[in-house]
Amino acid sequence: MYSFKNDYSEGAHPRILQALSNTNLEQNEGYGQDHYTKAAIKLLKQKIGRYDIDIHLFSGGTQTNLTALSAFLRPHEAIIAPNTGHILVHETGAIEATGHKIISIEVADGKINPLHIKAALVTHSDEHMVKPKLVYISNPTEIGSIYTKDELEQLSRFCQTANLYLYIDGARLGSALCSVENDLQLSDLGILADAFYIGATKNGALLGEALVICRDSLKEDFRFHMKQKGALLAKGSILGIQFLELFQDGLYFELAKQANTMASVLKNGISTAGYTFLTPSSTNQLFPVLPNWLIKRLQEKYVFYVWENVDAEHSAIRLVTSWATREEIVLAFLKDLKLCHRLKS
Amino acid sequence: MYSFKNDYSEGAHPRILQALSNTNLEQNEGYGQDHYTKAAIKLLKQKIGRYDIDIHLFSGGTQTNLTALSAFLRPHEAIIAPNTGHILVHETGAIEATGHKIISIEVADGKINPLHIKAALVTHSDEHMVKPKLVYISNPTEIGSIYTKDELEQLSRFCQTANLYLYIDGARLGSALCSVENDLQLSDLGILADAFYIGATKNGALLGEALVICRDSLKEDFRFHMKQKGALLAKGSILGIQFLELFQDGLYFELAKQANTMASVLKNGISTAGYTFLTPSSTNQLFPVLPNWLIKRLQEKYVFYVWENVDAEHSAIRLVTSWATREEIVLAFLKDLKLCHRLKS
Amino acid sequence: MYSFKNDYSEGAHPRILQALSNTNLEQNEGYGQDHYTKAAIKLLKQKIGRYDIDIHLFSGGTQTNLTALSAFLRPHEAIIAPNTGHILVHETGAIEATGHKIISIEVADGKINPLHIKAALVTHSDEHMVKPKLVYISNPTEIGSIYTKDELEQLSRFCQTANLYLYIDGARLGSALCSVENDLQLSDLGILADAFYIGATKNGALLGEALVICRDSLKEDFRFHMKQKGALLAKGSILGIQFLELFQDGLYFELAKQANTMASVLKNGISTAGYTFLTPSSTNQLFPVLPNWLIKRLQEKYVFYVWENVDAEHSAIRLVTSWATREEIVLAFLKDLKLCHRLKS
Amino acid sequence: MYSFKNDYSEGAHPRILQALSNTNLEQNEGYGQDHYTKAAIKLLKQKIGRYDIDIHLFSGGTQTNLTALSAFLRPHEAIIAPNTGHILVHETGAIEATGHKIISIEVADGKINPLHIKAALVTHSDEHMVKPKLVYISNPTEIGSIYTKDELEQLSRFCQTANLYLYIDGARLGSALCSVENDLQLSDLGILADAFYIGATKNGALLGEALVICRDSLKEDFRFHMKQKGALLAKGSILGIQFLELFQDGLYFELAKQANTMASVLKNGISTAGYTFLTPSSTNQLFPVLPNWLIKRLQEKYVFYVWENVDAEHSAIRLVTSWATREEIVLAFLKDLKLCHRLKS
Repeated sequence: MYSFKNDYSEGAHPRILQALSNTNLEQNEGYGQDHYTKAAIKLLKQKIGRYDIDIHLFSGGTQTNLTALSAFLRPHEAIIAPNTGHILVHETGAIEATGHKIISIEVADGKINPLHIKAALVTHSDEHMVKPKLVYISNPTEIGSIYTKDELEQLSRFCQTANLYLYIDGARLGSALCSVENDLQLSDLGILADAFYIGATKNGALLGEALVICRDSLKEDFRFHMKQKGALLAKGSILGIQFLELFQDGLYFELAKQANTMASVLKNGISTAGYTFLTPSSTNQLFPVLPNWLIKRLQEKYVFYVWENVDAEHSAIRLVTSWATREEIVLAFLKDLKLCHRLKS
Repeated sequence: MYSFKNDYSEGAHPRILQALSNTNLEQNEGYGQDHYTKAAIKLLKQKIGRYDIDIHLFSGGTQTNLTALSAFLRPHEAIIAPNTGHILVHETGAIEATGHKIISIEVADGKINPLHIKAALVTHSDEHMVKPKLVYISNPTEIGSIYTKDELEQLSRFCQTANLYLYIDGARLGSALCSVENDLQLSDLGILADAFYIGATKNGALLGEALVICRDSLKEDFRFHMKQKGALLAKGSILGIQFLELFQDGLYFELAKQANTMASVLKNGISTAGYTFLTPSSTNQLFPVLPNWLIKRLQEKYVFYVWENVDAEHSAIRLVTSWATREEIVLAFLKDLKLCHRLKS
Repeated sequence: MYSFKNDYSEGAHPRILQALSNTNLEQNEGYGQDHYTKAAIKLLKQKIGRYDIDIHLFSGGTQTNLTALSAFLRPHEAIIAPNTGHILVHETGAIEATGHKIISIEVADGKINPLHIKAALVTHSDEHMVKPKLVYISNPTEIGSIYTKDELEQLSRFCQTANLYLYIDGARLGSALCSVENDLQLSDLGILADAFYIGATKNGALLGEALVICRDSLKEDFRFHMKQKGALLAKGSILGIQFLELFQDGLYFELAKQANTMASVLKNGISTAGYTFLTPSSTNQLFPVLPNWLIKRLQEKYVFYVWENVDAEHSAIRLVTSWATREEIVLAFLKDLKLCHRLKS
Repeated sequence: MYSFKNDYSEGAHPRILQALSNTNLEQNEGYGQDHYTKAAIKLLKQKIGRYDIDIHLFSGGTQTNLTALSAFLRPHEAIIAPNTGHILVHETGAIEATGHKIISIEVADGKINPLHIKAALVTHSDEHMVKPKLVYISNPTEIGSIYTKDELEQLSRFCQTANLYLYIDGARLGSALCSVENDLQLSDLGILADAFYIGATKNGALLGEALVICRDSLKEDFRFHMKQKGALLAKGSILGIQFLELFQDGLYFELAKQANTMASVLKNGISTAGYTFLTPSSTNQLFPVLPNWLIKRLQEKYVFYVWENVDAEHSAIRLVTSWATREEIVLAFLKDLKLCHRLKS
């Protein structure tokens, strides 16, 4: 059985493990004060092109989101997020557990635009309602779509005017930035977002997310919040070492490209076989709509999520590729799919 | 400069890294549902000698404490802890951030006994005060002392009678259990505590703490709490793999013994040189009281915490050893100490 | 200017003030331990027909909701509520501030049924999502509709089977129970709900809501939660005295009937004048749809909320009556409405 | 049985009830937006002598404290309070329930000084500990002592230099300001504190505390916090009407003086009878140390708290007077005390 369930089934890219091994017996300062973490942060600032930003390394996405958002907001302030947002759906109320309401915006394509926000601001008019203060988006979204530079600029401008923070969940940011349809760069995020994170767990690291805080007023005392939420690792250097390895020569982007390329091969093959997709995606998550009998056959050899029922006979499945996905497996999958398809017809 | 600052300066024991490397490219279920984690949990149950307990793997001590304690308590329930307790002093209010008050008990030796608890229960008499519900202790304590089996049995019995939970922070549990003065076993903890955790970050792992929940009523839905606090790692197998390696043939205890042995060599040498200790300790943390001029000289070659001023001329320092501490360094330290001592006199 | 904005514009019914005055200089125990509160609670138990329930008096609805719901739920448990629910919309995130997510259910008529809940349970399937545990409804709803006994029985049965708590916000419970369409009694609520509250602030009291806890497991230590949330009034007897006055001879229901009667006169008059309503209501809140020009004219003499735009020319307004609404004002309003209507045509 | 247990046994001063009665059937805006509340706030600003402050009316002290302190602090910020502080001891962890740790300072006389704070700042040195940000004091303290103007100025200056907020719990502020030993005025508090509250529940009102926010940065969006904590009363005018009555012609101070005078009569009588006091007090709380047999005799006719055991034969009791305490009762108490005293000797 081969799994297309997600992009965190395997361990780390071998170079990551090698880097951990090379530095293993050195003595380092604890809790992220080591020189590897400092060097990784310096390197990330270079890549983002700003030196007046703060960067903190975390061990997971939910932890990053809950620490950042609860640190940024006062008790009565709320978050605006698309209804598909990870914090709304798949983090077990982690944000609410820190005291903040999330205002859900119904969207078709996973993406929020200024009109959505404007509408939420209009309905939240006085002290009997929460005060919207932060807009949460993911890039790519939970359904694989990405923001264009123009869309993000509009959002950013609107948020600035409306005195809202713009926060970008980048759990799969590598895949978004390496999409063939992408026109955004890391340096754009450093200008357009108030804070965002660069996910590495889903792109080659054992664990690791780099939170980038761009807005000055959000930086103060941030390490206190990390410690309070249990996010400061005693052996924090293991995060720094990994980010250093990922960014010192472009490994991070190479791995994301590999994931996207494998998704692209899958996508073309599935299209060629005559099937469509629930949502368009140029990243490493695909949502093909297949007949239920075919899904059942594929499940004999492959593991993946059945995402949703489309009609009585068809469902969308989710296929996720990663840096570790090998082309021969992808081709085998397509061959199996086409074989089943042919046998049936 | 060699550091005796703590027991998490280095990375992992080489066998841990090797185990991670050996399994690196396998595909595993995410979020701790993989077979390595399951095997590690099964193995730990064997070592504890109970199969009706629940075990969950975490990436750090503060995270373990805040997730467990907030899951176990209702909003008005409070924790009783010694004034030196880690949750009281060094976790940035992580427990209070989940809504719970910690009642501080002044103790001289880091240890709580039933009389302390009884006194706290007497003063907390009605609904205008919090309701004490959980007793938090560490073994070893923050100042290196350990609980005897008899002491722990008394505590456990008292807690049971008073309808209190007994929770043991075992960040350095290995060192306690391998102390020459120890008469407790893992299996005793499984009977005497309602929950405790087995720390590995400070005993050979890259990161990892195993929370053991013994009391049935505390087990329900525990993974929800972990997810909500950001404690479920996507690549959870890296915790399982490490615990499996540490416990399959006794490596965990071997490493703890090595740390204790190095501490013992240090202790004997310092005693022989004519110095005393702030607190007695048979674990891997020592608190020798040294003249300030000597501390200054030692600081030229060694890194350690100056713990507290004892009088105008003397301070206690903290020396911590670990599985990675080499004997030649310890001997060099003692030689330097004695040399300074001799030169002065 | 006369206000139809709400049912809490005036102070208390004169008998309430008289009762406070009569007992004013007596010495009473503090914090709700006085004999008036005890007598009021005993009386309410009689009216509900159960003596195995617990009753606590609060000073406001939001305070009641946030204290009760946070006391009832564990950190990962969530609330299911209709999208119009007061806790979702008009309590400034008070529930989320205690750490709990509210799952919003889209409903047309303000009412939740078992199918809604079933759907929410299906989508909340594992520990990556919150665990639905309590169903929150209001009777009457925020838009004036009421639950029939049959509907409430179905809900109650479903909740029991699904291991969910059923909680009823009764801020305007008097108006619901005195509606001409109502077939529920206080005693039904004591059987069908796990907890509910009887609102008095909006029905004659200066301030006061009586929370009734029917399910045994939700009762323990409840006064601790009240104190922690700032809900125990030092002079708690002023709540007991009011509830005693309201329930000793049926004043509570008399006042609710008066409010409903005035609403009914308004409703008939508005219907007769040829206008329709946004939602059907047999309680003390009406939502007539009027031409915008007419609304403007009425606003010269009357105060009320413009609830929502219906089309370019029409809006719904909200008219609320209370025990203090005098018939001559209602008739004057109708006369003005009809006059405007006639002048225009 | 006559109660000296507290200063909230009776209802309101008759003039308060009269004022509520006089305005009872007027229609007012809800939630503290009425013209009485506005007038009361304006009047209080006059009395404090500053117009650039914000004032909000609450229904109880715990509610005021928890709403204000949680609104003022970021999640990692902590409160410094004397070990006798009400928020530390008698509010069921209400502050911790909003996420904040309280650092307890051992004091003998209930009062904190800059040296105490300095010591706390020294020990809280990095992000592994909470960050002290607000100093909480009460005036009078829980044991009846009061701050002199000089002491408060020193505290205020120190807090300003150390970037700490100074907050004064004024549950019994009237009694402090009317003490014969007092040299502080309301206008001093408006300059020296960042926020404080003027308690009325314990000084003649049915319920009511006026929170005064002096520091600009603490004012923003404060009504959101009030609503979120359930502190906005629907019929908010009842708070405004009471404060207006209390402050329009000095009734507030008159009532406090009456309470102090009665305490003074008690104090002199008890001293004359040859007994001493646990703590000196010039306010409305006294802590005489009496033989246990005498306490028992007094308890046959009077209700009061036995505060603490002093030695095997003696205990301190707490006697509290209020505006409602009548001189004949006080004299009867003293007569009984002296009679018992004489009979025994």
